[in-house]
Amino acid sequence: MVKVKVGILGATGAVGQRFVQLLADHPWFEVAALGASDRSAGVRYRERRWVLQPDMPVAVRDMELRLGEPDNFRDCQVIFSATPNDVAARVESEFAAAGYYVFTNAGPHRMDADVPLMITDVNPEHAPLIRVQQRQRGWSGFIVANANCTATHLTSALKPLHDAFGLEKVFVVSMQAVSGAGYPGVSTMDITDNVIPYIGNEEPKLEEEPRKMLGRLNGDGIEHADFIMSAHCNRVHVLDGHMECVSVALRRKATPEEAVEVFRSYRSLPQEMGLPSAPDPCIVVRDEPDRPQTRLDRMAGNGMATVVGRIRRDPILDLKFVALGHNTIRGAAGGSVLNAELLFQQGYIR
Amino acid sequence: MVKVKVGILGATGAVGQRFVQLLADHPWFEVAALGASDRSAGVRYRERRWVLQPDMPVAVRDMELRLGEPDNFRDCQVIFSATPNDVAARVESEFAAAGYYVFTNAGPHRMDADVPLMITDVNPEHAPLIRVQQRQRGWSGFIVANANCTATHLTSALKPLHDAFGLEKVFVVSMQAVSGAGYPGVSTMDITDNVIPYIGNEEPKLEEEPRKMLGRLNGDGIEHADFIMSAHCNRVHVLDGHMECVSVALRRKATPEEAVEVFRSYRSLPQEMGLPSAPDPCIVVRDEPDRPQTRLDRMAGNGMATVVGRIRRDPILDLKFVALGHNTIRGAAGGSVLNAELLFQQGYIR
Amino acid sequence: MVKVKVGILGATGAVGQRFVQLLADHPWFEVAALGASDRSAGVRYRERRWVLQPDMPVAVRDMELRLGEPDNFRDCQVIFSATPNDVAARVESEFAAAGYYVFTNAGPHRMDADVPLMITDVNPEHAPLIRVQQRQRGWSGFIVANANCTATHLTSALKPLHDAFGLEKVFVVSMQAVSGAGYPGVSTMDITDNVIPYIGNEEPKLEEEPRKMLGRLNGDGIEHADFIMSAHCNRVHVLDGHMECVSVALRRKATPEEAVEVFRSYRSLPQEMGLPSAPDPCIVVRDEPDRPQTRLDRMAGNGMATVVGRIRRDPILDLKFVALGHNTIRGAAGGSVLNAELLFQQGYIR
Amino acid sequence: MVKVKVGILGATGAVGQRFVQLLADHPWFEVAALGASDRSAGVRYRERRWVLQPDMPVAVRDMELRLGEPDNFRDCQVIFSATPNDVAARVESEFAAAGYYVFTNAGPHRMDADVPLMITDVNPEHAPLIRVQQRQRGWSGFIVANANCTATHLTSALKPLHDAFGLEKVFVVSMQAVSGAGYPGVSTMDITDNVIPYIGNEEPKLEEEPRKMLGRLNGDGIEHADFIMSAHCNRVHVLDGHMECVSVALRRKATPEEAVEVFRSYRSLPQEMGLPSAPDPCIVVRDEPDRPQTRLDRMAGNGMATVVGRIRRDPILDLKFVALGHNTIRGAAGGSVLNAELLFQQGYIR
Repeated sequence: MVKVKVGILGATGAVGQRFVQLLADHPWFEVAALGASDRSAGVRYRERRWVLQPDMPVAVRDMELRLGEPDNFRDCQVIFSATPNDVAARVESEFAAAGYYVFTNAGPHRMDADVPLMITDVNPEHAPLIRVQQRQRGWSGFIVANANCTATHLTSALKPLHDAFGLEKVFVVSMQAVSGAGYPGVSTMDITDNVIPYIGNEEPKLEEEPRKMLGRLNGDGIEHADFIMSAHCNRVHVLDGHMECVSVALRRKATPEEAVEVFRSYRSLPQEMGLPSAPDPCIVVRDEPDRPQTRLDRMAGNGMATVVGRIRRDPILDLKFVALGHNTIRGAAGGSVLNAELLFQQGYIR
Repeated sequence: MVKVKVGILGATGAVGQRFVQLLADHPWFEVAALGASDRSAGVRYRERRWVLQPDMPVAVRDMELRLGEPDNFRDCQVIFSATPNDVAARVESEFAAAGYYVFTNAGPHRMDADVPLMITDVNPEHAPLIRVQQRQRGWSGFIVANANCTATHLTSALKPLHDAFGLEKVFVVSMQAVSGAGYPGVSTMDITDNVIPYIGNEEPKLEEEPRKMLGRLNGDGIEHADFIMSAHCNRVHVLDGHMECVSVALRRKATPEEAVEVFRSYRSLPQEMGLPSAPDPCIVVRDEPDRPQTRLDRMAGNGMATVVGRIRRDPILDLKFVALGHNTIRGAAGGSVLNAELLFQQGYIR
Repeated sequence: MVKVKVGILGATGAVGQRFVQLLADHPWFEVAALGASDRSAGVRYRERRWVLQPDMPVAVRDMELRLGEPDNFRDCQVIFSATPNDVAARVESEFAAAGYYVFTNAGPHRMDADVPLMITDVNPEHAPLIRVQQRQRGWSGFIVANANCTATHLTSALKPLHDAFGLEKVFVVSMQAVSGAGYPGVSTMDITDNVIPYIGNEEPKLEEEPRKMLGRLNGDGIEHADFIMSAHCNRVHVLDGHMECVSVALRRKATPEEAVEVFRSYRSLPQEMGLPSAPDPCIVVRDEPDRPQTRLDRMAGNGMATVVGRIRRDPILDLKFVALGHNTIRGAAGGSVLNAELLFQQGYIR
Repeated sequence: MVKVKVGILGATGAVGQRFVQLLADHPWFEVAALGASDRSAGVRYRERRWVLQPDMPVAVRDMELRLGEPDNFRDCQVIFSATPNDVAARVESEFAAAGYYVFTNAGPHRMDADVPLMITDVNPEHAPLIRVQQRQRGWSGFIVANANCTATHLTSALKPLHDAFGLEKVFVVSMQAVSGAGYPGVSTMDITDNVIPYIGNEEPKLEEEPRKMLGRLNGDGIEHADFIMSAHCNRVHVLDGHMECVSVALRRKATPEEAVEVFRSYRSLPQEMGLPSAPDPCIVVRDEPDRPQTRLDRMAGNGMATVVGRIRRDPILDLKFVALGHNTIRGAAGGSVLNAELLFQQGYIR
């Protein structure tokens, strides 16, 4: 089998590096091109600081960074984008218009009415929105977005509950890792022995994206789910992994035991299809009173699973629990890779 | 003025040391005796590990630790108790029965119907419950408790809102410091690069104590306030200072601006009376979008104030905000010291 | 092939757990018994707190902990000992006298004249000292010790230099991980935002053990190498991995380039024999100016390698460099396992 | 008494802020002007991020930042410079040529033959070099430099030993705080759970500056002290405070007890003169086996003292010990302020 050639935009950043890492030995995709800003274009990849472990994959060390413009990626079909938000809207549109299949971790297109905001384990049925997008915009390529890192794991945990009981209200407080701010990101002087109860523009995303993803494809658009959300977002001194304390009100009342059963029995399309990056199960349930914990559980399912625990009654709403997931794997690059795997299997990538 | 002689039970623990530190140069109280378990009794205080900065006060270095029994504290009138919970119920009752005025940071007596659970800035009007206690138990001394560290700062922040608007529902997620677990307490291997979303028996306290403190003294008992509470408690990698994300539903609707005004204008008895340890203001309001922060703000008012910020609308309830305070100063030893100052001024200590 | 049945003493501690983890899928050894103190004997292993990632291996979860006495391990031939130092001398001798092949990470026997203190990549030629031990003590079993964690990686780094140039003086300053103190070990309150420039009894070990290991088996004893050592040991806020700054005076002068070449070309018996746990290479040389770093490099060779870097001239002695290694893998349990693999292949274990 | 008006160059950086903080209530000096680069010039100081605790002093909050050129500081006599190294050489020379008395924390002028590199407690007798500088350069103003932060505390600790016994060789390994890299400085992702055994260009400074400061003013220049130095520099996860493990060879042999006595009895000019910022003692000796510790001891003498401990024999050289000090107080801004106090008292500032 000939592998699909892919390019990575924003390859020098923290999320871009995760794309490189996750795609280094991918069975279906092959990294053919790495994109960067004009500051780095022309430079070999190994001359840029690699912030992940283990070391930079050998295959990409000598690749020359290309300026992130469509003409420079003619040998690629698929584009994974970790482009900075301030230019992503323009750049990604240019690539999609030029016929590339763009899977983006950037923010600008997420809430576009004709862009699927996808978590393969949550809303694979939103994929046909791609055809609406192509028709409306006149593109041969397309853009598929993955969600904000915190929203990804929250929505993954909410999905089985929404299916089974119907969500009415969702209250969430996040404790987020520094890697969510990129590299160099958060200064040691700011976070050591500290909690920062604020992350710029994070709460609106967290209150908005889950409702789109748990919504229904209806004709040419997504009808957002109609529960109410409230979010508090905090930065804590953790390298990777976002922990979320969640309380929910349900339309059909359920006991903690029923919720546990619903979490535990949840399966979705990626597991059935055996996609290479799909975690199985996609939701891991921990029974111990003090789990999940960020450092201990963030790598569940190779960083692709969402881990839940402490499912119990909530005195104000109905149930409360904690949810945890890796923010730069499933919550960023890994989510996009899994989206591409699904759409490749479904024939959207040719 | 002759100082009141005080003894400190559990003086070798982390909270006991805070009592020692806060009372070292106190204008009204003088540390005359230090109590410990039989493992340490007879040993000089300086032979026990001091875990605070700066160094152990010189005046207590050579004090001999006494076994924590009433007969050994005859030179004291007031007892500050940092006794471990498993023996506090018995030990503190023995001291109060023997005529000592006991100010305890321990848990067992907090919810006793005839024990004032006091924060001087919240419910000084509960003090007369002491007379009920003395009458019912036939004690010449008494026990006054301060609240759980997390409950203390939460209740301090809730008080002005409850007074002004009436609380209906309170949702809180805490991010608590390791010093709350005492010394040695939390292992480095457990908390580095980690969040532990569980603290044993903490959530029930946090859901229960504020309602007592915000209740009303009615005849011989306290009528608890009738709002509903829900708490999630987390341990994070912070040395001192508990951060709390709070959402509230109010009986009389209020805007964030009204809430800010209510916080900012709040004054209470300790400030009026000019008590030596009273912070002024007792509630500090920060306007910056990213404050309070744990390390930057925990020492507000010498660790005796509660700091609030990020007051804004909550989509599910009415308002949300963050509250922060020092857990081993105002949240433990300092709260007890301030209780004693108030009751001393009011003539309960003679 | 029938696997050799092994027992692990001190299985509930941090090093004991590493033994369990490293032996869980071992091709030659099978964990048949887990030992503990009388506090834990009779309890299932899963009821004890597991402090490593990933989760406790399934195969041992239901094993019943046995009291650490020879009669209770009759189904085992080999004993790996993570016994606390205060009882290790007695317990390990009883096991060896009873015919068990004991590989110990504990301290008491390390400097015994007839006990091999072995790093497979450094002094496999000390193995015949076992016969002296058995003869002198009248044992059918034996004891082989691995070195202190800090001494292990220091000695591994010194070995190629000693072989090539002869050591005259060795100056070392260590920055050691908290896991070296076991679990719960170091309190968060002691090490956060701190360096503790003292580890009880560590400097003497570090000044003594390398000279035994780099010594020569001569008749019935080891002639210690005759270089001088000076050590400063520090605890820093790192979970795993000991970093060491080393300066050496050599008997035959060498340039940094010659030292790099000697490090890079070093091979020893375990690589030749293809032992299952042998890292290859056993010494990893990093060329970057800022490597090795503790978190980035401690897992080199699955935690079994020693990583060196920054090899340069020293103005006082001859050369300086840094050396790093994982303290609870190669520096503890992993070192013992590799010793057992070597001696199994050489026929000492039958 | 009319206060001397001072200006602070580089006032928005971490060291510049320390200058502001230390000078906010100074009895002799008054902050009249704050300098910044053209990016910040014209902006009010409070609009720049303040990274210290407690909050920014009220008196400077509304000051307008001035471009760092001599004409803009005509209301000042004294300049404290926290100018970035890349422009400090030029800018500071311009100020001194224009008649300002410049006290700099920057690096470029430190090793100039006619610039005093001063620690008031070490080499106040180098002050007359100022006259050589003024004569040679034709300046009415002057430049006095303070040393690298690590060199400052090392040299302070070496001074009494050098006076009493004569230094021959000095071996030092530092474990340095992140604040030494300024703000934002070290990324959380780089230092959490890590040691970085490298700080760019730090070792050469540490091997060079102490010899100048411990040298002798001889005619128109400084004759450097002739001991040999070797340094390893490490970055560790500590906010403030540099810890140093030091081994020394002495020309006249001394016991650890003699060295302790020499440390303990050391007094110098600033204590005699009662300078406002002078710590007394300037060297604090700790007797406990595990002190000094970074977090516990960095604020000794309000961050202006050097703390030593663990004085013991060294098997290779003569003695070993640890030294600790605050890097951004005494090791940077505070050292400069104390230099200015001394020279003001001595009439160099008129």
